[in-house]
Amino acid sequence: MIIVLRPDATKDQVNHIIEKVKVLGLTPHVSQGTERTIIGVIGPEDVLRVTPLEVFPGVESVLPVLAPYKLVSKEFRKEGSVIDLGKGVKIGGKKAIIMGGPCAIENEPTLREIALAIKECGVSVIRGGAFKPRTSPYSFQGLGEEGLKILKRVGDELNMVTVSEVMDTRDVGLVAQYVDVMQIGARNMQNFNLLKEVGLTRKPVMLKRGMASIVKETLMSAEYIMSGGNFNVILCERGIRTFEDSTRNTLDVSAVPVAKQLSHLPIIVDPSHAAGKWGLVGPLAKAGVTVGADGLIIEVHTHPEDAKSDGVQSLIPSNFSSLMKELKAIAQAIGREL
Amino acid sequence: MIIVLRPDATKDQVNHIIEKVKVLGLTPHVSQGTERTIIGVIGPEDVLRVTPLEVFPGVESVLPVLAPYKLVSKEFRKEGSVIDLGKGVKIGGKKAIIMGGPCAIENEPTLREIALAIKECGVSVIRGGAFKPRTSPYSFQGLGEEGLKILKRVGDELNMVTVSEVMDTRDVGLVAQYVDVMQIGARNMQNFNLLKEVGLTRKPVMLKRGMASIVKETLMSAEYIMSGGNFNVILCERGIRTFEDSTRNTLDVSAVPVAKQLSHLPIIVDPSHAAGKWGLVGPLAKAGVTVGADGLIIEVHTHPEDAKSDGVQSLIPSNFSSLMKELKAIAQAIGREL
Amino acid sequence: MIIVLRPDATKDQVNHIIEKVKVLGLTPHVSQGTERTIIGVIGPEDVLRVTPLEVFPGVESVLPVLAPYKLVSKEFRKEGSVIDLGKGVKIGGKKAIIMGGPCAIENEPTLREIALAIKECGVSVIRGGAFKPRTSPYSFQGLGEEGLKILKRVGDELNMVTVSEVMDTRDVGLVAQYVDVMQIGARNMQNFNLLKEVGLTRKPVMLKRGMASIVKETLMSAEYIMSGGNFNVILCERGIRTFEDSTRNTLDVSAVPVAKQLSHLPIIVDPSHAAGKWGLVGPLAKAGVTVGADGLIIEVHTHPEDAKSDGVQSLIPSNFSSLMKELKAIAQAIGREL
Amino acid sequence: MIIVLRPDATKDQVNHIIEKVKVLGLTPHVSQGTERTIIGVIGPEDVLRVTPLEVFPGVESVLPVLAPYKLVSKEFRKEGSVIDLGKGVKIGGKKAIIMGGPCAIENEPTLREIALAIKECGVSVIRGGAFKPRTSPYSFQGLGEEGLKILKRVGDELNMVTVSEVMDTRDVGLVAQYVDVMQIGARNMQNFNLLKEVGLTRKPVMLKRGMASIVKETLMSAEYIMSGGNFNVILCERGIRTFEDSTRNTLDVSAVPVAKQLSHLPIIVDPSHAAGKWGLVGPLAKAGVTVGADGLIIEVHTHPEDAKSDGVQSLIPSNFSSLMKELKAIAQAIGREL
Repeated sequence: MIIVLRPDATKDQVNHIIEKVKVLGLTPHVSQGTERTIIGVIGPEDVLRVTPLEVFPGVESVLPVLAPYKLVSKEFRKEGSVIDLGKGVKIGGKKAIIMGGPCAIENEPTLREIALAIKECGVSVIRGGAFKPRTSPYSFQGLGEEGLKILKRVGDELNMVTVSEVMDTRDVGLVAQYVDVMQIGARNMQNFNLLKEVGLTRKPVMLKRGMASIVKETLMSAEYIMSGGNFNVILCERGIRTFEDSTRNTLDVSAVPVAKQLSHLPIIVDPSHAAGKWGLVGPLAKAGVTVGADGLIIEVHTHPEDAKSDGVQSLIPSNFSSLMKELKAIAQAIGREL
Repeated sequence: MIIVLRPDATKDQVNHIIEKVKVLGLTPHVSQGTERTIIGVIGPEDVLRVTPLEVFPGVESVLPVLAPYKLVSKEFRKEGSVIDLGKGVKIGGKKAIIMGGPCAIENEPTLREIALAIKECGVSVIRGGAFKPRTSPYSFQGLGEEGLKILKRVGDELNMVTVSEVMDTRDVGLVAQYVDVMQIGARNMQNFNLLKEVGLTRKPVMLKRGMASIVKETLMSAEYIMSGGNFNVILCERGIRTFEDSTRNTLDVSAVPVAKQLSHLPIIVDPSHAAGKWGLVGPLAKAGVTVGADGLIIEVHTHPEDAKSDGVQSLIPSNFSSLMKELKAIAQAIGREL
Repeated sequence: MIIVLRPDATKDQVNHIIEKVKVLGLTPHVSQGTERTIIGVIGPEDVLRVTPLEVFPGVESVLPVLAPYKLVSKEFRKEGSVIDLGKGVKIGGKKAIIMGGPCAIENEPTLREIALAIKECGVSVIRGGAFKPRTSPYSFQGLGEEGLKILKRVGDELNMVTVSEVMDTRDVGLVAQYVDVMQIGARNMQNFNLLKEVGLTRKPVMLKRGMASIVKETLMSAEYIMSGGNFNVILCERGIRTFEDSTRNTLDVSAVPVAKQLSHLPIIVDPSHAAGKWGLVGPLAKAGVTVGADGLIIEVHTHPEDAKSDGVQSLIPSNFSSLMKELKAIAQAIGREL
Repeated sequence: MIIVLRPDATKDQVNHIIEKVKVLGLTPHVSQGTERTIIGVIGPEDVLRVTPLEVFPGVESVLPVLAPYKLVSKEFRKEGSVIDLGKGVKIGGKKAIIMGGPCAIENEPTLREIALAIKECGVSVIRGGAFKPRTSPYSFQGLGEEGLKILKRVGDELNMVTVSEVMDTRDVGLVAQYVDVMQIGARNMQNFNLLKEVGLTRKPVMLKRGMASIVKETLMSAEYIMSGGNFNVILCERGIRTFEDSTRNTLDVSAVPVAKQLSHLPIIVDPSHAAGKWGLVGPLAKAGVTVGADGLIIEVHTHPEDAKSDGVQSLIPSNFSSLMKELKAIAQAIGREL
């Protein structure tokens, strides 16, 4: 922590700050400059972080030196984490994992049809929402537990890993019982109680970046889950909110290498929610793999015209199949597998 | 709903869309232009809204005509709603309501001290967090139910309306039992299950705009609460996330008149979280009142140096007292009271 | 400047950096911490600022301590600058200066009509564009020199200060010859050659903040003008680009007190371009005065239906007149004049 | 153009609008709905676009149907444009064109050294700034004409296409005389006079997207150049401004397929300015090629520690060389060449 003093800071003010630092058990290093005096406090920043040093008289600004996360950081674990999703599927290794499926589970035949279609392309993970976060209270809100049962049946039948979103602390037990991977949606990335609750399970959690969250905040949310003891966290970049209006969100591909530099956690890319239009999903999916993502999550629907949610951004199986071929060629070119 | 067709749309494609519109019980109006054909579907848009018309072959874009919210809208109720917060305090009328207090309830003596200080300035609403949404799992998370009890005791003792945040669907009953107004924080604005849960109570709800939410989405979240039967919703503008780095968030004062044009709900401004620095709270508070807000919520702390949360943006009582005098003069100048 | 080293920085790397700092004539202060070593370089940062220290091996991050601007800063001049616009009008003092007029000068009778209407409300500054920055090459581009002549005639006739935009380095001489205040538009805030060119004149310059510029960058652009010797700079907040879509831009009222804390330059607010809709201009104008702006620039048109540019956001004289009355009451309430 | 009327629009108001539409030579189609009346005006929107219909009494909103650009659009030219940069280099075809070089031209030996290094990797285009847009007036502003001469000498000597930025309308002739491709920087994307000026030449222009510009506005700026007669325009995505702080800008890879859907113009990606850190340039460069860009522009410097500008984001030749190998493999995998 670096404390920069105002040019007009008095001696008493400086001493008051130094004393505060010492009381907290830390050692201040004062450096007198020509235009500013600074106090360096190099050591465990946590105790200082909760002290509002900026309100101390004479302080101009406070610059943190250390990152506020620990368990998610590269310093905690040097090599990348490989997370076991069950059914023989692991994420974080050489093989990039593709997840596919509809936005919402609508009924069993449709889900089975979609699952079969993507399995044929080599996909081993099926996603589908049973609890749907919808902007409007009048939109389809998902089938709830019935949807989870359908997902489990289809997953078991086809030996595919299942992913579904959990939105409510009260539903964590229920969702954990049916699915292989629990998804925390972008709108719940800072629903801290939900993070704590999934942190108490040992189920893999796929944590989507919030629309208005920087990468470091996404890591802090992962830290919440890990600090509860659940180290099976997969990050997901799905686009952030910007002024650009030709896509639903702006896919921030830089988030992938940035997260890889800061953290050992695997990270996947969701091109469907970023694009918001199926015609852009392919290019973004390919960019996601190339930029270093450990996987992708793509919306696929056999009848997008009838989809109850997000049909606009769903690929039909034939397009998905072509995309998978392209992705395989790219994966190979960059030394990965698909 | 206006459906704009691509210049190369075939007759079959157009007929396919027209049929779909008719199947949904609506009447399409086709207008042939020189460069584009459009299909106007004027009527209840809700059934069309859930149909992903953009994926129909031949469609270029779909333009909604009607707003997706009903109960919150000016068309539903022409005059502004006045909401009774209890203890004789009403919001939405001529009198602008100032709410003050610490970010987090730390202990009873401190809260009482702060409550007394602001009451002396004419404030009748005390806020304080018992459940705190903190970015880091290692930060102070609030006193929980103990905090709510302290808040209730101080509120009852000084006859002040109490406001506190609820973050978890499981806590709605608990929080509702202790406080007069439940706050939904910015990070939970689209925690739809939480919105539904508070919608089932009849307690006033203060709904903060999400950092990445447009005004219309904030209204949709209010619609969630109201569609559950709870019409006692107060909106709160508290700044949005932008690239500007000299404030914690960018206070979007325009949101106040925009919300007033679209909705009958009262709206308040939170200058403290927008500014993130106490030195900017005063100007933003004054701007908030002038722009038409029905109230303000301001962080006040008697000892900001020791505050466990957000001390940097808290006003001390003497500064708060001066601000209240200025606010009164402004309120009078614009024909309101404080 | 604080240089934070990586935990794995070698001794050689540290020495290489220290040497570089010394070669630049500065004194490094090394502080060894438990988790990081930092090197404080307190002194004239300018020489370091141009050295890409982040690329030196072993460096984790570089934190600047001093602001990069000088002439615009509060440290350079403690009291606020008062700038003489001519014709007895000064900005930066107790009196807030209102500027009004059409977006574009269309013809002499219309401009005179508008000028007379606002003069009647007590306005002493008329604005009107002769060179118009239009998004489309097919839109009306302004009358050019003919417009400037009209503006000058009307200004002289009614003894009003004139403001008009200059967009091209080649036109600075021409515009300076006709108008009292040259405007640099938001899109040209970082047109550095244009800034240099107006910096060579002594004409007052009204510098609009860029849509994607932070306050500090706006100050840096003012520094360009001042470093050329022209100290007559007036800043203008006119809204920034965000994801919110109910206004053309998001008026960042915080920019006013932030600029006042950092700089001695006067700052005005443009509610018309921020709002993009005349119905929101009033509330934003009032917020602008309250938050501490030294003036406002408002679009007024006698026949907005026929305006060749920005008619949607123009007030008609009767609305403008009512607004002026409200602004006067507010100004008085906060201890200013209008 | 669709005109949506307010529910309370009077018959007179509707007639007034219809009349206006007819006066402009267009045919209105009125559709009466249950909740709203709309007027469709399908035909040349340009005349309507300049009329501020939103201010007409009774109008709720106005929805444009047609894009405002013509010459840049896919409808104007179906197949992608291939632009001849001279010296046998063409952009827009199967071969992706890599451009490399320093941010600023510092001296002839350094530029030659860099040019030789990248030429060895198969690069045929050298970039280097002679006129530098710098945020601070105290930073190195470029060598001016001397820099252009150096660039020309090196380009001629090594038979490489040269690219350099033009910032000032007065310099267009000068820059055009020395370089093969003129660059319009992000800060000048809406410097409309500069766009008009380069539009009068026939030199290829590389137009960088503004930090706060949507893709459609970038196309409008290209339209400015093309409407002057210069059809040799290359778009460049270089990152937009968002709240994310781990990169200098947020590279919007979606802009590439979006631009390809709307326009026939080639588009390249600048990973260096987007990343702002050399360690992220590689992943972004690879994502750029994969997403469909027709080329890349990458900062390369032999001695980044001594670079006078943007050293932090420059690759050294050995890293650049590795990257080129990876890019070649990716290009091949997606059916392109490098």
